Parts: sequence; C-alpha cells; structure tokens
Amino acid sequence: MVFYFAKKSVSLAAHIVLEESGATYETKEIDFAVTEQRSDKYLEINPKGRVPALATDSGIITETPAILAYVAQTNPASNLAPINNPYLFAKCLEFNLYLCSTVHVAHAHRVRGNRWAEDEKSILAMKNKVAQNMSDYFELIESELFVGPWVLGDEYSICDAYLFTIAQWLKGDGVALSKFPILSDFEMRMRNREAVKRIIGIYKV
Amino acid sequence: MVFYFAKKSVSLAAHIVLEESGATYETKEIDFAVTEQRSDKYLEINPKGRVPALATDSGIITETPAILAYVAQTNPASNLAPINNPYLFAKCLEFNLYLCSTVHVAHAHRVRGNRWAEDEKSILAMKNKVAQNMSDYFELIESELFVGPWVLGDEYSICDAYLFTIAQWLKGDGVALSKFPILSDFEMRMRNREAVKRIIGIYKV
Repeated sequence: MVFYFAKKSVSLAAHIVLEESGATYETKEIDFAVTEQRSDKYLEINPKGRVPALATDSGIITETPAILAYVAQTNPASNLAPINNPYLFAKCLEFNLYLCSTVHVAHAHRVRGNRWAEDEKSILAMKNKVAQNMSDYFELIESELFVGPWVLGDEYSICDAYLFTIAQWLKGDGVALSKFPILSDFEMRMRNREAVKRIIGIYKV
Repeated sequence: MVFYFAKKSVSLAAHIVLEESGATYETKEIDFAVTEQRSDKYLEINPKGRVPALATDSGIITETPAILAYVAQTNPASNLAPINNPYLFAKCLEFNLYLCSTVHVAHAHRVRGNRWAEDEKSILAMKNKVAQNMSDYFELIESELFVGPWVLGDEYSICDAYLFTIAQWLKGDGVALSKFPILSDFEMRMRNREAVKRIIGIYKV
C-alpha cells in the first residue's frame, strides 16, 4: 500500500491508524507548499485534489473515515474498530462523521474560506466564528459523545486517532484544549502510545 | 426501530434505504417549521439537534452515512452495500463521505450560512457561491465518481439513495440537473423504483 499524506493535514489520523494496524505501507509526501495536491500527477491519484489517499492492491481509497474503516476491517487482529457488531460499527462511523462533516468543516472556515465565499470581508467574517464553533463542538464531544476512557469506551479505536488529529487544530483556531479536562487527559494519553509517538515525529505536532 | 425524519431534509436518503431494505420501522416526523429539532425532547434523541436519527434496540444512530451502513449491514439479503468486501465497502463509504462532507456542506451555505458567519453580507456572499460549487461537485460526480448504471456500478446501493436525495437540492441551488446527462438519466430511473415512489410521496419531491 502507498499512503499519500501531507504535514499539517488531516492525514495524520489515517497515518496513526496505519501505524497502529501493523500493516505494511509506504508513504509519499505531498507538498502543499507547492500545491502538489493540485498537480496533474496527484489528481490522477485523487481527482478531488486532497489528502489523504491510500493506494491498495484493489484501487485507491480517499476520505479519512473510509480509509480508517478499511484499515480496521483489513487488519482485524489490530482490533481498531468494532467491525463485527453493526450497531457499534455504526456508532464508530457516526463519531467519525461528526468530526468529518461538522468539526473539520468548521475548522476549514479559518484556512479555506475561499471555498465558500469570494470576498476578503466574508472570508474574515468566517474566520471570526471558527473559535466559537470549534469550542461548541468540542464541548459536545466532551460532555456527550466521548464515552471514555477512549472515544467509544474501553477499547481504543480509529475514532481516537481522528479526534487526536483534530484536537491539534484547536490552538490555531483560538480554543484552549485545557478547557476540556476529559479531552486534555485523552490527548496526553494518546501522545504516550508508541505508534502515535512515531507518527507525530513526522508531523511535528 | 423508529426513524426520526423531516420533510425538506437529508433524511430522505435513509428513508429510501429503510424502505428498500425490507426492515420493519416506524417513523416520527420532526417539524422544522416549529424548530422541533431543537426541542428538549428531540435533543435527548440527538443532542446535535439534527435529523435523521434511527432508534434501534441497541441505541440511537445519527449521521446519514452511519445509518445507511447500519441498515445495509443488518439487512444483508437486501444487498444494499458491498458489506463483505472491505475495499468495495470503503469505496461505498468514500462516495457517501464526499456527499456528506463536501456536497451537503456546500449546499448548506445557502440555507444555513449563519453557522459560519454572523453578518448578512457574508451570509449573502456564501449564498452567491453555492451554485458554482454545487455545479463543480456534480460535474466531478458525473465525470469521475459515478461508475454507472448505478453509483458503484452494476449493483444498486445506499449511495444511490443518497445521491438522489442531494440531486433534489440542485434546482433550489441554481443548478440545472439537465446539465449532467448521466445523472439526469440516473435520477429518472430512481423515480421509477417502487420503494422510492412510496417515500417521495411523503417528501413531495
């Protein structure tokens, strides 16, 4: 497998999960500084021009929650998701979907506002609402969605790597993780995992 | 099972899939006109204050792609997703993720802009970009992502119900579906399915 990633991107989540899974994979870094994600060569890998992407023997998979589910399902011994219980698996997807379509999207309004408006004033107005949105969403995660000690309960899962990744963005978004004691403790425990240590060394987070 | 839905919402997708699955379910309509999705009673069902939600014997599932995966996995005879092939299942999730986190999000900037900015001018600026974004995203679906004759190829799946649902929003977003011949044909074939006919009668789309 070849994993296409970029530092300072959400690819950290799938990168951690690949490392936790014990699967064999190579990596190819995509350089956002020169907009390599929009190069003809990379658009053949992912026509959406985004990372991460995972090239498997069967074909290429994109979208973080899809890659996470694939790695968990193809490495059952790593026990990275409740793949044999449709309800618990749906809860796992549900959490990742919230991160993907609500929390990541809120964050993106600080750094990719030009996706949704053209003028500088509107892009600035979007930036100004990011801290409040991220704070509200992490409050909901802290108080309602996070079961503990891991996202889904007793078992570490793909959800933890994804939440850890997005938690790294809070500071830049103007929100102190320390406001959320449960999630602060979670974040510290994540940093102590051997697989996480290896990958955050690459991302420098 | 109890399915919580609202007309003029994305719940149409999961509603169609439930109907296609042959599962037994009851429905409970949530009235957006009186903001019932934000009522204390409904926030106990879904603290995110959104539809759809599916109450199962095990607990409540939210987020459209998670509900779709659950219905497919718990009704294997209905053959609504490639649940026994991790790669194809990931491709199925990947498509639904694109709809959820990119296409639905783009549309939401027309009707829920106040999530991401406070002032009227910025909200209007967001509205003004919706047609272009939706057109670009449907162009990518038409040219790259849609395998044909159904989203994933020969087999009808949960992805089709979801794409059909979001295609209903194009007109309001200022985009003519007729610009996309493959997807126009797909949309017509969807309307001829018995399960779809029953559900769009409720939603009046």
